[in-house]
Amino acid sequence: MRTRLSTEQRREQLLAIGVERFAKLGYDEVLVEEVAQLAGVSRGLMYHYFPTKRDFFLEVVRTERDRLLRASEPDTALPILDQLNTGLDVYLDFARTNPDAYRVVHRAANAADEEIRQIREVGLATNRDRILAALAAVLPIDDTVRLAVRGWLNFVMAIVLDWLDNPTVSQADLRALCSRTLFAAVNVNPSDVQ
Amino acid sequence: MRTRLSTEQRREQLLAIGVERFAKLGYDEVLVEEVAQLAGVSRGLMYHYFPTKRDFFLEVVRTERDRLLRASEPDTALPILDQLNTGLDVYLDFARTNPDAYRVVHRAANAADEEIRQIREVGLATNRDRILAALAAVLPIDDTVRLAVRGWLNFVMAIVLDWLDNPTVSQADLRALCSRTLFAAVNVNPSDVQ
Repeated sequence: MRTRLSTEQRREQLLAIGVERFAKLGYDEVLVEEVAQLAGVSRGLMYHYFPTKRDFFLEVVRTERDRLLRASEPDTALPILDQLNTGLDVYLDFARTNPDAYRVVHRAANAADEEIRQIREVGLATNRDRILAALAAVLPIDDTVRLAVRGWLNFVMAIVLDWLDNPTVSQADLRALCSRTLFAAVNVNPSDVQ
Repeated sequence: MRTRLSTEQRREQLLAIGVERFAKLGYDEVLVEEVAQLAGVSRGLMYHYFPTKRDFFLEVVRTERDRLLRASEPDTALPILDQLNTGLDVYLDFARTNPDAYRVVHRAANAADEEIRQIREVGLATNRDRILAALAAVLPIDDTVRLAVRGWLNFVMAIVLDWLDNPTVSQADLRALCSRTLFAAVNVNPSDVQ
């Protein structure tokens, strides 16, 4: 019993199955045949959408990175502290409700691969530029600030991955932790930028 | 012209060449034959010390991790702020003077491999336990503190890798950045623990 889906719907369905499989299993353990079967399509159709398993995997990671970036787009009309806290809440909401997607994009094992690392780097660079643009309103951006923001993005990535596996800390506490750590890293007193 | 070395010296020589090669080239590009040649030994002798290229690589990473851990062992007799600042200085000195070693242990690409990731995890866990032991003197250790320290170790790792490639920030500024970020992450005012 095949379901009739449009090309775009079918593609999205295959990518959604992919993110779940790649998050649960390592790259080598994921079978393209199994993904096709779960979607109720033939192997041939699967290969029509994604010629190789590698193409499929790269597209899964790229799609999930873009979803996360779209979801956490900042409202630049807000004051910086509100921008950061609202952005963090959306980011943590996304990770909590899409743990598979978050893991596929961020976990260390997937940095094996140069192309995957580049996909992730684009995400990190976008977030870095957003944060530097917001900070530019309250402090001069120098190399130390750039380094601090880059380090902080890795800080967030590591604790969110940990938090998804062991959600013993509340999202509010996690947000507060991330927020105060960024301000300290860039050497700004949050009460000065209210 | 072969140099006569003891078994231990030969092993150290091979590992020293290995760290330089693996830092400069990817795993696949390093040739065991070339390492043997650079050391002035036969391929057979090389394989006597390290039966496979993978054994060799794992041993290089493990050795460099242990050197870094030994170098940055804290002086637990000092007050916590001095322990942290002295530990950070030694750590940054090590990274600056042994950039190849630092990159081989920490760079993302090498996390490809489950065994490499475990070698790195042991290093991270040792550092985390050292920091938590020092912090326990000044604050209760809960899950948020544990998460903060874990995140901070990734923060340091990311900025040190970046700093080795672009050393535009002074070591003193980097140390100050790392130090104030840790105190903020664990929510302690450094002047309260002087």
